[in-house]
Amino acid sequence: MKIYLAGPEVFLPNAKDVLRQKVELARKYGFEPLAPGDNQIDLSGTPRERGFQINGFDEALMDASDGIIANLTPFRGPGADAGTCYEVGYMCAQGKAAFAYSNDPRNYFDRVSDIHGGNLQADADANKIFDPHDLAVENFDMPENLMLVGGIERRGGKVITHAAPENMRYTDLTAFEECLRLMAKVHLFN
Amino acid sequence: MKIYLAGPEVFLPNAKDVLRQKVELARKYGFEPLAPGDNQIDLSGTPRERGFQINGFDEALMDASDGIIANLTPFRGPGADAGTCYEVGYMCAQGKAAFAYSNDPRNYFDRVSDIHGGNLQADADANKIFDPHDLAVENFDMPENLMLVGGIERRGGKVITHAAPENMRYTDLTAFEECLRLMAKVHLFN
Repeated sequence: MKIYLAGPEVFLPNAKDVLRQKVELARKYGFEPLAPGDNQIDLSGTPRERGFQINGFDEALMDASDGIIANLTPFRGPGADAGTCYEVGYMCAQGKAAFAYSNDPRNYFDRVSDIHGGNLQADADANKIFDPHDLAVENFDMPENLMLVGGIERRGGKVITHAAPENMRYTDLTAFEECLRLMAKVHLFN
Repeated sequence: MKIYLAGPEVFLPNAKDVLRQKVELARKYGFEPLAPGDNQIDLSGTPRERGFQINGFDEALMDASDGIIANLTPFRGPGADAGTCYEVGYMCAQGKAAFAYSNDPRNYFDRVSDIHGGNLQADADANKIFDPHDLAVENFDMPENLMLVGGIERRGGKVITHAAPENMRYTDLTAFEECLRLMAKVHLFN
């Protein structure tokens, strides 16, 4: 079973080392992992042309995969990396197996609340709670936006959270390994 | 042609008004717009169950749509709303028509640079540029992550940017209307 390894670790200085660790761990659990990378990218074009190439390359990896494990650890804000979110949607639309993890143990609501020091306000009807910019804060007892958690878990997957040390925010593989274990149990051994 | 209207305006206090405006404008251009909403949600379950319901409802709207126009205006950070990114990936995977807009005219690289007061550092080989948290900043001359812009534009769509006034960050429909105009030209009149 081929699985695509999605996540913002591609932006780390040691991205290749981290991806190699994830690949090795995935193989240990019986999967054939496919990881994004820019090794086969033609560097001769414009920046936009190179970006398009990487997108096409990564989509081809996803099309060749039977499932995805996505790292939804918050990236530059309280939410997951935009590219990773695209990839989860891309795989869910194809009905492929999807698991995900976050190295932040909090729910999305609590993360946004923490950013604003708890300064959230309920509206008059108390149906919704707003941040100081007057934007409603999702409160569905989920670690991420309901489209991601719903898309994954309604298809039999799971979003695992783990309290990683701050200096291992994008490199701690505890929750990734739990995804591998669950995914193998569901998809390889039955 | 049915089009799904994706974007973080669902989090505004006046979400219904803004969505109604978008729906009316889309109809003016000849489309049959489908907008996410929680009107038909059973409120009796747990928060997670309600979240799953909304996810299922919105995915059904996307499955019934022939295309998407996504609002990628940055949301709680330099990147687009996570749910909207999921939805763009979901529609691109189905090969459906995708257009998007951002009411922030800057490229992703410049937004991240601005957040850090220009304090970005090139690595030794100058192949990548890192933010103060040692995370590489995408620099592909694109308004968003390459998966989103690549996924949309490689399929014939377009990401439109517009410098909206700050107090109309999520309500300015100039760029949305430009998406409608382009999408109608490509998909309705040829």
